[in-house]
Amino acid sequence: MKINSNYDNLVPNYLFAEVAKRTNEYIKANPDKKVIRLGIGDVTLPLAPVVVEAMKQGADELGHKETFKGYPDYEGYEFLRQAISDYYKGFGVKVDAGEIFVSDGAKSDCGNIGDIFGEDNVVMVTDPVYPVYVDSNIMAGRKIVYADSTAENGFAAMPPKDVKADIIYLCSPNNPTGSAYTYDQLKEWVDYANANDAILLYDAAYEAFITDDAPRSIFAVEGARTCAIEFCSLSKTAGFTGTRCGYTVIPKELERDGHNIYKLWYRREATKFNGVSWPVQRGAAAVFSEEGQKQIKENIAYYQENARIISSAMDELGIYYTGGKNSPYIWLKCPNSMGSWEFFDYLLENANVVGTPGEGFGKNGAGYFRLTSFGDRENTIEAVNRIKKLLAK
Amino acid sequence: MKINSNYDNLVPNYLFAEVAKRTNEYIKANPDKKVIRLGIGDVTLPLAPVVVEAMKQGADELGHKETFKGYPDYEGYEFLRQAISDYYKGFGVKVDAGEIFVSDGAKSDCGNIGDIFGEDNVVMVTDPVYPVYVDSNIMAGRKIVYADSTAENGFAAMPPKDVKADIIYLCSPNNPTGSAYTYDQLKEWVDYANANDAILLYDAAYEAFITDDAPRSIFAVEGARTCAIEFCSLSKTAGFTGTRCGYTVIPKELERDGHNIYKLWYRREATKFNGVSWPVQRGAAAVFSEEGQKQIKENIAYYQENARIISSAMDELGIYYTGGKNSPYIWLKCPNSMGSWEFFDYLLENANVVGTPGEGFGKNGAGYFRLTSFGDRENTIEAVNRIKKLLAK
Repeated sequence: MKINSNYDNLVPNYLFAEVAKRTNEYIKANPDKKVIRLGIGDVTLPLAPVVVEAMKQGADELGHKETFKGYPDYEGYEFLRQAISDYYKGFGVKVDAGEIFVSDGAKSDCGNIGDIFGEDNVVMVTDPVYPVYVDSNIMAGRKIVYADSTAENGFAAMPPKDVKADIIYLCSPNNPTGSAYTYDQLKEWVDYANANDAILLYDAAYEAFITDDAPRSIFAVEGARTCAIEFCSLSKTAGFTGTRCGYTVIPKELERDGHNIYKLWYRREATKFNGVSWPVQRGAAAVFSEEGQKQIKENIAYYQENARIISSAMDELGIYYTGGKNSPYIWLKCPNSMGSWEFFDYLLENANVVGTPGEGFGKNGAGYFRLTSFGDRENTIEAVNRIKKLLAK
Repeated sequence: MKINSNYDNLVPNYLFAEVAKRTNEYIKANPDKKVIRLGIGDVTLPLAPVVVEAMKQGADELGHKETFKGYPDYEGYEFLRQAISDYYKGFGVKVDAGEIFVSDGAKSDCGNIGDIFGEDNVVMVTDPVYPVYVDSNIMAGRKIVYADSTAENGFAAMPPKDVKADIIYLCSPNNPTGSAYTYDQLKEWVDYANANDAILLYDAAYEAFITDDAPRSIFAVEGARTCAIEFCSLSKTAGFTGTRCGYTVIPKELERDGHNIYKLWYRREATKFNGVSWPVQRGAAAVFSEEGQKQIKENIAYYQENARIISSAMDELGIYYTGGKNSPYIWLKCPNSMGSWEFFDYLLENANVVGTPGEGFGKNGAGYFRLTSFGDRENTIEAVNRIKKLLAK
């Protein structure tokens, strides 16, 4: 029997595992130090009360015969898909409830979507990049090409002129660089995808952090419905990292290679997935209620203020960065020409602050570093003060 | 761009979709009839009170900063894995908590496990078979060979003498045939797998229905730790079809093709999955508590009594069947040499009872039919009385 030999091509260490390892080793050796983690992009504020209440009701419903729920619909309950459709409508984007798949998180769908595409497709990712796009395609044996995000383009890569790709991953607002594409930039990507008969896989997990007129969805862009699939998540929007719920939008008219893409993905989900937990779908629907939106926006505003605090410190220190405005991430140039891991160790040892080394996201991340605004206010302020004290020396 | 052309080899209609379609059409045309569904294997009894309570506590914990949970461990929380390990110990099987992956259901893991294996492996399934084993391997382009389950072997296929396979799927107690392998039969399969350097993928989703001394786990069988992966589920054990939780066991010493299988699957899960919802893991752990076990066993006993009622009717009618004893499924020979779909329509139209046509599970299912014991008592009795009245004619 043979294993999938493509797994041999994966880089052995997963970025966050290495961060955790170095951090834990430091804490073990220095038990008296208060280490503040602004590394992994995990939220810290509790779920909104209306969401908790809905989940508890959902659990209660499972405890009574009259309201018990068995196997869910593969694509999610209609009430939740309709709520998501209405949410899109709220920022002027038309997505039908029948085009939405509810999932246990955007990561699962981003990782699994490749199932329905052939192995010989060329995949384009921006560099730096969220590792899941790369690793899931290495596992499938696909050739990967890169579009460079650099200081020259504000860490928002545009389509390379002479490179053709069949599958393109974009994330906007971007993880890790925090940059959000403008309408015109996205239009260029959409045109590129349509011209190349490509599929654009658009990760909108951070759309709720947009504060200016950057598109909240790829489907705000003309032409996207004939080339794009959108992944979104309640993880960062509503604190669902431990609750697990996301959604994927596939326009009904999206066709490639003589096949309807919605139908292919439906078949995939019907075979290898069995829908999302009832109480979780109940909680997710509450996120999109009027009261839910009010409550989650308070949490988002809290993180945005943290981002402002970190950004301001970078301004004060004269450090180049992207993000922070439309994004919970601040992507900064390591001072004094330090390497990413060098700066990681330096910051951990001298300020007891954990961030994420940029080079873990790709070659263009070398010399860069990601801080996140998901910590609590007090820790964020303390971390920023330590960083300012250390780097202003 | 090319889609995964293996999808073109899938049989267009998913079995249960066709059952639902015919049933809904009948109901629409005959709104006055009371149709009883003994078709799809979905449970109907509510969750145990202790499970509901734990899920509500879990939701509450997400609502407070001090107890909030972000990203879960990919492999599941240690408290749940330990509870599952102790559950195995309860029937004399040693499975370490560190060998368990908690999932959103056995179907997801059964479907996704192929990711870590090469495409050129030959897959063996028993026929009739749970369609997920077949479809997920068609999607991967693998060659599939069949081990026949027939009336001659009591619908419990044994390893074919001259066929070599690299990946073998077994389900015991079996879906759809209800037959449970004995220790000696499983030993034969384990020896076959080890002799052929194969991986045995063992679906134990129905283990809680075993009433005799048939093994509850493949790891009860000598030699299984060097060849087997086990999938299990709380769906049928604890009514989790809508709650979504299962688990997969990979012995740490399981190696193939120079690779450690646990590590490969961990990498897969870390890339394409993000763990199971906190309240669901809290609820799942409650299933394995002393009170939880007491409560779920009452539900299982209820379904077992339904199975006894259906089996007794088959005995009365002199209809050949397997299952019913160690299984919620009764797999019966269609009377009067009817075909499976012919009998489906006959039963729907004349007794207003919905079952599942055996041929939807494979060629050896032709002329057979599956009834399930997951209905409520009253409906099960009524359905059985209608069937007896119809077939005793």
